[in-house]
Amino acid sequence: MKNTLGNQLTITLFGESHGEMIGCVMDGLPAGLEIDEVFIEEQMSKRKAIGSISTSRNEEDVVNIVSGVYDGKTTGTPLTIIIANEKQRSDDYEKISGIARPSHADYVAEVKYSGYQDYRGGGHFSGRLTAPIVAAGSIALKMLSSKQIEIGTHLSEIYGIKDDNFNGDVVELCKLNDKYFAVFNDEIGRQMVRVIEEAKSEGDSVGGVLETIVIGLEAGIGEPIFDSLEGLIAHGLLSIGGVKGVEFGSGFGLAKMRGSKANDSWVMENDMMKTTSNHSGGINGGISNGMPLVIKTVVKPTSSISKPQSTVNFKTNETVQIEISGRHDPAIIHRARVVQDSIIALVLVDVITARKGIEWWNK
Amino acid sequence: MKNTLGNQLTITLFGESHGEMIGCVMDGLPAGLEIDEVFIEEQMSKRKAIGSISTSRNEEDVVNIVSGVYDGKTTGTPLTIIIANEKQRSDDYEKISGIARPSHADYVAEVKYSGYQDYRGGGHFSGRLTAPIVAAGSIALKMLSSKQIEIGTHLSEIYGIKDDNFNGDVVELCKLNDKYFAVFNDEIGRQMVRVIEEAKSEGDSVGGVLETIVIGLEAGIGEPIFDSLEGLIAHGLLSIGGVKGVEFGSGFGLAKMRGSKANDSWVMENDMMKTTSNHSGGINGGISNGMPLVIKTVVKPTSSISKPQSTVNFKTNETVQIEISGRHDPAIIHRARVVQDSIIALVLVDVITARKGIEWWNK
Amino acid sequence: MKNTLGNQLTITLFGESHGEMIGCVMDGLPAGLEIDEVFIEEQMSKRKAIGSISTSRNEEDVVNIVSGVYDGKTTGTPLTIIIANEKQRSDDYEKISGIARPSHADYVAEVKYSGYQDYRGGGHFSGRLTAPIVAAGSIALKMLSSKQIEIGTHLSEIYGIKDDNFNGDVVELCKLNDKYFAVFNDEIGRQMVRVIEEAKSEGDSVGGVLETIVIGLEAGIGEPIFDSLEGLIAHGLLSIGGVKGVEFGSGFGLAKMRGSKANDSWVMENDMMKTTSNHSGGINGGISNGMPLVIKTVVKPTSSISKPQSTVNFKTNETVQIEISGRHDPAIIHRARVVQDSIIALVLVDVITARKGIEWWNK
Amino acid sequence: MKNTLGNQLTITLFGESHGEMIGCVMDGLPAGLEIDEVFIEEQMSKRKAIGSISTSRNEEDVVNIVSGVYDGKTTGTPLTIIIANEKQRSDDYEKISGIARPSHADYVAEVKYSGYQDYRGGGHFSGRLTAPIVAAGSIALKMLSSKQIEIGTHLSEIYGIKDDNFNGDVVELCKLNDKYFAVFNDEIGRQMVRVIEEAKSEGDSVGGVLETIVIGLEAGIGEPIFDSLEGLIAHGLLSIGGVKGVEFGSGFGLAKMRGSKANDSWVMENDMMKTTSNHSGGINGGISNGMPLVIKTVVKPTSSISKPQSTVNFKTNETVQIEISGRHDPAIIHRARVVQDSIIALVLVDVITARKGIEWWNK
Repeated sequence: MKNTLGNQLTITLFGESHGEMIGCVMDGLPAGLEIDEVFIEEQMSKRKAIGSISTSRNEEDVVNIVSGVYDGKTTGTPLTIIIANEKQRSDDYEKISGIARPSHADYVAEVKYSGYQDYRGGGHFSGRLTAPIVAAGSIALKMLSSKQIEIGTHLSEIYGIKDDNFNGDVVELCKLNDKYFAVFNDEIGRQMVRVIEEAKSEGDSVGGVLETIVIGLEAGIGEPIFDSLEGLIAHGLLSIGGVKGVEFGSGFGLAKMRGSKANDSWVMENDMMKTTSNHSGGINGGISNGMPLVIKTVVKPTSSISKPQSTVNFKTNETVQIEISGRHDPAIIHRARVVQDSIIALVLVDVITARKGIEWWNK
Repeated sequence: MKNTLGNQLTITLFGESHGEMIGCVMDGLPAGLEIDEVFIEEQMSKRKAIGSISTSRNEEDVVNIVSGVYDGKTTGTPLTIIIANEKQRSDDYEKISGIARPSHADYVAEVKYSGYQDYRGGGHFSGRLTAPIVAAGSIALKMLSSKQIEIGTHLSEIYGIKDDNFNGDVVELCKLNDKYFAVFNDEIGRQMVRVIEEAKSEGDSVGGVLETIVIGLEAGIGEPIFDSLEGLIAHGLLSIGGVKGVEFGSGFGLAKMRGSKANDSWVMENDMMKTTSNHSGGINGGISNGMPLVIKTVVKPTSSISKPQSTVNFKTNETVQIEISGRHDPAIIHRARVVQDSIIALVLVDVITARKGIEWWNK
Repeated sequence: MKNTLGNQLTITLFGESHGEMIGCVMDGLPAGLEIDEVFIEEQMSKRKAIGSISTSRNEEDVVNIVSGVYDGKTTGTPLTIIIANEKQRSDDYEKISGIARPSHADYVAEVKYSGYQDYRGGGHFSGRLTAPIVAAGSIALKMLSSKQIEIGTHLSEIYGIKDDNFNGDVVELCKLNDKYFAVFNDEIGRQMVRVIEEAKSEGDSVGGVLETIVIGLEAGIGEPIFDSLEGLIAHGLLSIGGVKGVEFGSGFGLAKMRGSKANDSWVMENDMMKTTSNHSGGINGGISNGMPLVIKTVVKPTSSISKPQSTVNFKTNETVQIEISGRHDPAIIHRARVVQDSIIALVLVDVITARKGIEWWNK
Repeated sequence: MKNTLGNQLTITLFGESHGEMIGCVMDGLPAGLEIDEVFIEEQMSKRKAIGSISTSRNEEDVVNIVSGVYDGKTTGTPLTIIIANEKQRSDDYEKISGIARPSHADYVAEVKYSGYQDYRGGGHFSGRLTAPIVAAGSIALKMLSSKQIEIGTHLSEIYGIKDDNFNGDVVELCKLNDKYFAVFNDEIGRQMVRVIEEAKSEGDSVGGVLETIVIGLEAGIGEPIFDSLEGLIAHGLLSIGGVKGVEFGSGFGLAKMRGSKANDSWVMENDMMKTTSNHSGGINGGISNGMPLVIKTVVKPTSSISKPQSTVNFKTNETVQIEISGRHDPAIIHRARVVQDSIIALVLVDVITARKGIEWWNK
């Protein structure tokens, strides 16, 4: 539903880049969850633009929970998060009113909202809207963690440079969550940073691939045929601006395999069903099979670049040359990582609750 | 919702491979649509197992519309499609009760349904459930076609062999819909068939990539943030058994591009906004931009192979060697094509109706 | 959603009075429920037109479960019920095409479905559509009963004649379920029958009030603010043709009370919280409070009467006098009783599952 | 869905009585609607506690729209309303922690939220939550009014005293909207006020019946079987605290009529289909028939009274005598009136949009 995601646990997003505030309402949380403000802040900080690989405006993004929490614990009624926007010089944007920035939502918003959209800073389409997702996701991540379900995402690839593969060690996975630039191999991470810096120095941008691994999810979760675990997760992830593809397990690589290779054979280990490979990414028939979930998304290069681009002003119908000035990131993928964790956590809490009921979280 | 897809136009699926019948209920159709039974039959025939690249059982799959149609036209109330199952020798399947066929849903169904699932022939997880999707999709495809929205899907890749790219010609696109083996380049198609035959001769299987192009969709369709056009389409497509990834436009290829290459510049052509490239696959910010939609899925190699595989009988906890006998397809991707068309058509009718209202279809 | 009711447990209705079949799909049932065909048949028989107070066509209404059951138990995947329609002399109805029968849906269906509705026998608006509701409700009633939640409905009032009030004895309540004409006081029941017979003899009809009591529902069920228990139940009940009002506890009688009378005082009895009165009908703040639910609906007099009526043929715009011939019931309230039980049971299973999870039903 | 109402146009409520703020998110509004702040303020003022018939705290209730509006017009993206709570002396409430006030939600909230609910001032169950409903409803009412659909509600009955019936004159109906105490007959209104004052002087409270009439709704609106117009409206109205019953047209009065009286005969007047009576309340078969909608609710007497009451402290299990002190209204029905208008307006915009599409509102 438009700006609401989920069935049992829902998150409803609102706000625009240059409005008074952005935020979200979470509905369907169990009562009695402790709100860990330090963790929320940590998660928010991973989304921030930091250092040489960023130029974007760096807002404080103070998370303010204005309903649904009493005495530090969730009440079970809607939890509302608001994040005030800092005052922006909106006049910067008036100059570009009518200009369809390439691969931005300017033109489609004009059509869909008949010219009434708040176009300043991308309005409702701004990457800023991912901030409340991260705040909400923090709560979901804590819930999963309390049930020994751990999520980690690394920058699997940036502009052709690839990180090491996950070695299967949950400790390694969790270490990702302490890093601002989340890679398994920090040496490769430094190469990635250089690639981003190069793009930045040329007024350009790069994208990449994020890989998420989820450990500890029991078998039996997912509501196929239509609410398959893959369908629900992809639905959520494709809401993140810049994500243009999702794959599970070996994903598009399966197109080059035969069944005899792609099939994951079952074995019994310590009375647990396991598969010897995980090309299915932990999901069979739309239902978790007990193996780690493996989920990849592609994040396109940031659309805002300062290199000259040709485009159209849809108000005057004139062709114009633009160089997008202002503070823009040469890459957002390292910041999008925590958004991906958050969306996956929100979806998993939702679909687990469908099976277990809301009371389960308190057991 | 589990077995219901869509908001305005919904399809609710039911049935099992070896039950009495399979089918679906479509709700939210406009009244007065003519039901084109010949077209439905044509679409159904594209899903059938035919020729040297198939060995699977070939059911008649007679589509019977038992509600929602009066005097050859839709009434506006739920349209129900049933397809009778032919009598199966179910005893074939009792032998494999408890055996977790690799990359099948046998084990997850056991967990999720506590052992009560109808495991015969995959039960509710059988590929047969795509038959009512195709029948329902035929109606959606006709609706789109009446509004000059055309959909075509080709086998973009099979086991490493790639078809030609779409040349942009809508006539070429529509020709795909007349082919059983849908490729732009028939010579390449023959190579693909050989690859499938080879796999078959070795008791193995192959998968590939399906690429769908949608022409004629106006700008402004999609309900972001969460019901982005990408999110809705991916959600639907990942319901199809065997689909393990979805990408839009240049998809995962964007990970190797810079923004200056990936961005699609706008130009005005004959008073129409167009982009000079289409890396975004016709979607910006979750909303159609008027350019062709470009959607790719990966279809994994068929899980049923007759090569020996090692696995576990989850009822006895014993390791077993299996060779899946019976009639199984060495590839299903050429049959999945029409399922993909159908899902995309159903999703598009749904999301267009959100914007235009149900009365629009009769204008 | 149009023809789907529920969130966790959904029922999707389809069919028309003179089509091939009517039926429904239930989705979200737990696996492993035993299907009690005898009980289903008993429930169906309570919906049938029987004896001197009926003249309507009496169909066999054979319930055929065509998916979702294997080996006598639910599989957890969609359970589909179909009921074949007997062949009708549809030519009877052609005569009245265009005639807006007073208080029937003929005219609104014409407008909503642009003249394409199947008008024969009321089409999708026929009371026949309650038959699959009763079949589905039988399954929900059994689920509740397995958790000691019992539902009983009596004919609280017919054309001014009132049954005794519920005396609080669960045995008395359950006895209602063995009666075809469900009243606590059989002597009053006979008076009611006479009132119906009188109406029949004059070609007229009567309505009344149904009161349902639910015993054994624990406190804490309901999802306010918007999915209050009252809201969900009323939503369901107002789907039944002829129901024009719903009230809880003392309902409209509260308009004549002061707070000091209307308030239900709490006492502790055997470590259980109880109220000394039950004007709230077992619901506070949209949530069950552990006391019996008390729900009343008004069922209007049957619209089909054979007395002369003046109306309009909306195809010719002419005023016409009609006497609705054929077999029509002078009252349907005694048959609607089991539909009311069924809807309430379906809603309760749905909202209980939201709290408890689907696995709870198997515990 | 819990705290979200609607399908096309949704409203998501949040907040607690003594939290930082209350509010709602509206999603699915068309872009370009002018926001009439004066009208919103007028509507809000009708909900306020004023004069001799109130004693409750009178908050400023400043409506602050923090997203979804740009340049005074809706943007088409989520519109968020927040209303700051004034600082409350929460210590007043600590005294009553654990006390199950009769007919309040204290005990059920304790059960449902496991003791973690914000019990101060009723928390999420407070009547304050209707304030954002009224603010949101103002926008919906304006939309309907722009399409010549007018809504008016009068206090049909208070503690046995009945207002005049609606005389069918739309001017009279609209006059209701200018009154704080909305009755057709002001003399009777004065009697009602006296009845409320009497109750107040005795530390007691009264309830009554609200009747809403909707003029100008075209035939064909409603989505039966399950989203019947009655079902949707009742679902919304029963979310209002204190509403315990809903009826349409002659409602429960139909139990005392025969069909020959209850049926509404069709006539053609000036090429318009009309009925000579309106026992059906403008709805046949769940679909509007073009006649005025007539909707009644019963609002129970305010539960907070200062008369001594006996109840239980569920934390100590002790029986306690309470006299609810503080500022409480002897009646809320005159203030609930505008909440009822608002809910009905929100539901109607939602279901009209399902048929007409979102673009229709701008035509």
